[in-house]
Amino acid sequence: MKSFLFLFVFLVLTKTVISARKPSKSQPKPCKNFVLYYHDIMFGVDDVQNATSAAVTNPPGLGNFKFGKLVIFDDPMTIDKNFQSEPVARAQGFYFYDMKNDYNAWFAYTLVFNSTQHKGTLNIMGADLMMVQSRDLSVVGGTGDFFMSRGIVTFETDTFEGAKYFRVKMDIKLYECY
Amino acid sequence: MKSFLFLFVFLVLTKTVISARKPSKSQPKPCKNFVLYYHDIMFGVDDVQNATSAAVTNPPGLGNFKFGKLVIFDDPMTIDKNFQSEPVARAQGFYFYDMKNDYNAWFAYTLVFNSTQHKGTLNIMGADLMMVQSRDLSVVGGTGDFFMSRGIVTFETDTFEGAKYFRVKMDIKLYECY
Amino acid sequence: MKSFLFLFVFLVLTKTVISARKPSKSQPKPCKNFVLYYHDIMFGVDDVQNATSAAVTNPPGLGNFKFGKLVIFDDPMTIDKNFQSEPVARAQGFYFYDMKNDYNAWFAYTLVFNSTQHKGTLNIMGADLMMVQSRDLSVVGGTGDFFMSRGIVTFETDTFEGAKYFRVKMDIKLYECY
Repeated sequence: MKSFLFLFVFLVLTKTVISARKPSKSQPKPCKNFVLYYHDIMFGVDDVQNATSAAVTNPPGLGNFKFGKLVIFDDPMTIDKNFQSEPVARAQGFYFYDMKNDYNAWFAYTLVFNSTQHKGTLNIMGADLMMVQSRDLSVVGGTGDFFMSRGIVTFETDTFEGAKYFRVKMDIKLYECY
Repeated sequence: MKSFLFLFVFLVLTKTVISARKPSKSQPKPCKNFVLYYHDIMFGVDDVQNATSAAVTNPPGLGNFKFGKLVIFDDPMTIDKNFQSEPVARAQGFYFYDMKNDYNAWFAYTLVFNSTQHKGTLNIMGADLMMVQSRDLSVVGGTGDFFMSRGIVTFETDTFEGAKYFRVKMDIKLYECY
Repeated sequence: MKSFLFLFVFLVLTKTVISARKPSKSQPKPCKNFVLYYHDIMFGVDDVQNATSAAVTNPPGLGNFKFGKLVIFDDPMTIDKNFQSEPVARAQGFYFYDMKNDYNAWFAYTLVFNSTQHKGTLNIMGADLMMVQSRDLSVVGGTGDFFMSRGIVTFETDTFEGAKYFRVKMDIKLYECY
């Protein structure tokens, strides 16, 4: 009995410590996981009604890929690909282009949930390596239903329609939940 | 005795695991908690002496609520509501307005402490949902006395005096301390 | 034997809890640690070939230390001080100046690794207190080989050559690794 207890304690402790802090090669399973679509409709001049984002700086001319264009957004997040579907969250934040010989971007934003299903926010930042099909950003914090969460958001560009509209599939995987 | 020990071990382990990673409905108690007031005095033209922040972009005209106005600040943090009190920290960072049909903002900044009481920084980001009385942002990291901290900052607008001055009560709650 | 077991369990549990969450005065050892040099070559007018960063806002005139100048960068990270060495990572993000009576900055960026040695990203933000010789920013997340990492980056200005070029030694210490 004593040795059984000892073994039990040892195993549980080991698991606790590993899952909490120690390096390991295999990624743990997410404690929460959901996919949302991000819709960005760029403000032109006479489309206040539809626009959800607007550029606030002019690219200074470093290359031909909009380097230095900074866009602020309040974009709808939907569960399907239709930007007119009822949003389940808003994405509020900014991105900018930052490469002189290709399209590449950087994002920092908050997912704001305010529905019967979820209330709270997720805070996200990271590089959007647009030439890569699937790229990862960091969920660095959360509030409300997502209190103190951390995780990964995987971006995949779903469509890019000129300068007016693009859609990104965002696969949100939380690995720390409270 | 054996079963008592077993129970004790089980209970303590359960608590450890829950408080560390597993989802739970009740929020743990903060390991550190303090309230500070943030004072933002916007730069006009001839008030360099008093100003603590300045707009660096012009709103592009998406709605009437300053959408796209980005402000960089080095603002005093005080323990009372008087902006002329001796600051206990500086808030260095930026915010911008990001909604076309109401006032709404987004913040990223560092609280810089350099007193006999505290040395170090706290890094914060998140949505400032101005239409909500009390809203939460994320403390995503810390240095010095706040080494590796994480937590929540709860904003409440304390006063808003036109375009020149506003004050926010910031309730800083750290849930991960080292 | 019983009391020995009890003591053992108690000690291990105590250690677990402390290393995971409780305040402690001594900083733990990093699980990963490496030093890289950051090279920033500011875009002028006719140097697209060499430039790695560009200002996107004009300082509005709050003091004489570039308050409000925001710079977007895609900068090489090297293991030695030569900016022409083969980069081991890119630093993609932005900084701005934010003090009216001295030089002081604020950074948010991603280190993008894409070599045989490392693939993945580290997301970093914090104040760059330029008047201090050595200052700490937060690693708030990571992806790929740096999955879910957290830690500290210590900046030391290595050289500052007018407005065109500066180099920062970045000592990256990760305290949470998976």
